Amino acid sequence: MALATEILSDRWTLLILREAFYGVKRYDDMRSDLGIPRSVLTERLKRLVEFGIFIREPYREAGARTRYAYGLSQKGAELGLPILALMQWGDKHINQNEPAIEILDRKSGKRQFVALVGDDAKATKLADVRIAVL
Amino acid sequence: MALATEILSDRWTLLILREAFYGVKRYDDMRSDLGIPRSVLTERLKRLVEFGIFIREPYREAGARTRYAYGLSQKGAELGLPILALMQWGDKHINQNEPAIEILDRKSGKRQFVALVGDDAKATKLADVRIAVL
Repeated sequence: MALATEILSDRWTLLILREAFYGVKRYDDMRSDLGIPRSVLTERLKRLVEFGIFIREPYREAGARTRYAYGLSQKGAELGLPILALMQWGDKHINQNEPAIEILDRKSGKRQFVALVGDDAKATKLADVRIAVL
Repeated sequence: MALATEILSDRWTLLILREAFYGVKRYDDMRSDLGIPRSVLTERLKRLVEFGIFIREPYREAGARTRYAYGLSQKGAELGLPILALMQWGDKHINQNEPAIEILDRKSGKRQFVALVGDDAKATKLADVRIAVL
């Protein structure tokens, strides 16, 4: 549990991961969305790449220097489940049942929940849901 | 997400919560199980009581002074789901699919998993599972 704790132990790291789950990949977009200091963002992303959570990819727009984007690895993407479980808990117990997010199946639009189930249950893939911020 | 992060952000806090999920309630038992310094345990428990995660209950054995036990509130007990999700992720991605724990239904003995499901899925109650440490 030590590494998992280390990853989730930092407020900025969680916010960076949330950006990633919302589909934000580029360094500059993360920085402006979060208002995070450059030195902090660079350091956190470096550690997340070392942990195998993000994969760093160079990209280049015409006339500009090379910049970097950060895509979630499978390992990183699957951190979505504990984080959603945490948000669901927060919605119930911190926000007094006034949910801040809804997890919706992309196709059916039906609400999804994080739950404990037997291995015969039909699980929804993380890639098949979208998070609606209320 | 801020409070949830604050709670899970601390290695000792997570270990104390894990003790609680294993059924340990008494201050002295937690202290000897974890080898945690008295000052640290006292401070963490105080915060967890303030957050409404633990309920502090005095108890007294014959001839001894009053001591304290810490029971999980419902809010605290339901933190079990994000923590199990985190352990499940760690088993897959940190322990290379060599699980450190199994979540077993107390009655059927069947393995349970944390997953994303529709609201028609039959969820297993946290109280109905036990954690087998492998």
